Amino acid sequence: MKKAALSGKIQTTTSAATQSKMNILLTNDDGIYSEGIKALYEALKSLGDVTIVAPDTERSAVGHGITLTDPLRVKSVYRSNKFFGYATTGTPADCVKLAIRALLKTEPELIISGINLGPNTGYSVLYSGTVSGATEGALLGIPSFAISLATFENPDYRYAAQFAKKLAGAIIANKGLPQGTLLNVNVPAHKGKRIKGIKIVRQSKVAIEERFDKREDPHKHTYYWLTGEIVSSDGQDADIEAIRKDYVSITPIHCDMTDYDFMEELKRWKF
Amino acid sequence: MKKAALSGKIQTTTSAATQSKMNILLTNDDGIYSEGIKALYEALKSLGDVTIVAPDTERSAVGHGITLTDPLRVKSVYRSNKFFGYATTGTPADCVKLAIRALLKTEPELIISGINLGPNTGYSVLYSGTVSGATEGALLGIPSFAISLATFENPDYRYAAQFAKKLAGAIIANKGLPQGTLLNVNVPAHKGKRIKGIKIVRQSKVAIEERFDKREDPHKHTYYWLTGEIVSSDGQDADIEAIRKDYVSITPIHCDMTDYDFMEELKRWKF
Repeated sequence: MKKAALSGKIQTTTSAATQSKMNILLTNDDGIYSEGIKALYEALKSLGDVTIVAPDTERSAVGHGITLTDPLRVKSVYRSNKFFGYATTGTPADCVKLAIRALLKTEPELIISGINLGPNTGYSVLYSGTVSGATEGALLGIPSFAISLATFENPDYRYAAQFAKKLAGAIIANKGLPQGTLLNVNVPAHKGKRIKGIKIVRQSKVAIEERFDKREDPHKHTYYWLTGEIVSSDGQDADIEAIRKDYVSITPIHCDMTDYDFMEELKRWKF
Repeated sequence: MKKAALSGKIQTTTSAATQSKMNILLTNDDGIYSEGIKALYEALKSLGDVTIVAPDTERSAVGHGITLTDPLRVKSVYRSNKFFGYATTGTPADCVKLAIRALLKTEPELIISGINLGPNTGYSVLYSGTVSGATEGALLGIPSFAISLATFENPDYRYAAQFAKKLAGAIIANKGLPQGTLLNVNVPAHKGKRIKGIKIVRQSKVAIEERFDKREDPHKHTYYWLTGEIVSSDGQDADIEAIRKDYVSITPIHCDMTDYDFMEELKRWKF
């Protein structure tokens, strides 16, 4: 595995930076047959050699799950009679691990997870399979970002796909991302002039108002179905509000979850 | 949903603090039939009314996954002819949501997830179902901790169970935890005098050295199986090294994953 350079940045290799073609890995959690990953592939292929390793079916809200108790299988997927990518029986995190550790001959310079159908903002970042694909990339020392379109209906991925291409260029131009940090990008559903710009924002700390539908199946057995929605936001400097105001939101996310502020207080507790 | 008090702490209610019995919710990711959750139940029941809502089978390494595309089912589980708890078809995070939103009449004052068979240290925190049970509790505004025994073989949960009881008392005595923060506890496998004490430590930033076993099934199809181990540690002030030195490790974990340090640099990028 390539380690981060001493500067604390994950550097792309000099040869890659000067090559006309860079290696890019794509994954997602909506599955390899989704339109979101196809739009991303079409937009990115002019930048380099793009490989897709993605779940064979939808794996939404899997969090940063990985598959330990079952084997993983891989098959080649074709679209319009051309090789499109590898479908696996695993989660997005599994896909990235498999790509780097077993499938790819050359380590990618960039990993992109998406384009997700639906936003990944606030605490949903913790549940998101899309984000976890990029998290796995960051853990493996490769510059990575997740990109989501903030709508569930009538999606048009073109703007988001072009923005992904632009962001890929910016990451390369800035020589990567800090070790263990990824970018979480959300793009408003509106297109063209209605998108007002880009905001670098923190993750919102807003809980989803959840409830369970309690139902009865045809055999008179009870079952529960989770439902809920984000009903509030917590400030202009956070992802949920940026999207509501028609900005593209970019939130740097890191994998050290230690609450350093509380550590000192906890050291004074008596056990 | 109960909100955190204005002080920024999740307060237990006055009535609960003065009651002789407090309400405690237990969950885990090894499943309701595991020995770890039974040991926890036996140790905690003298502290209050303990309710178990746990997966019906092992859900390890599910990360902070939740179940959106399938319904959840719940059944009562008996051990030694006595009601023991509720088993669900969901993940640990699902179990906590279901308990709070649908099954329990009274909101618990404390949620404990474990005792896990095997450690949850370093970046494994991101993959851990055990930790995600406590994370869900913290997101719902209830003081929560995860507890794991740092062995995979010949586990003796008694010391860890007694430590969980002690920590539950400390959390109540200190009037809860900050909103959105949980504790991640790891207990060395050794018992008695060999445990040297308690260390409040950060999450290690050590990658697991992973690889895939590539195999062939009886039908000549290829499959991959993930394996790997932690081979290094990154300092005395982190969880992996504390456990190696025979200390109980306690790491405060929060749910805001924003990399604030990198935000300012990112604002200077040109897109």
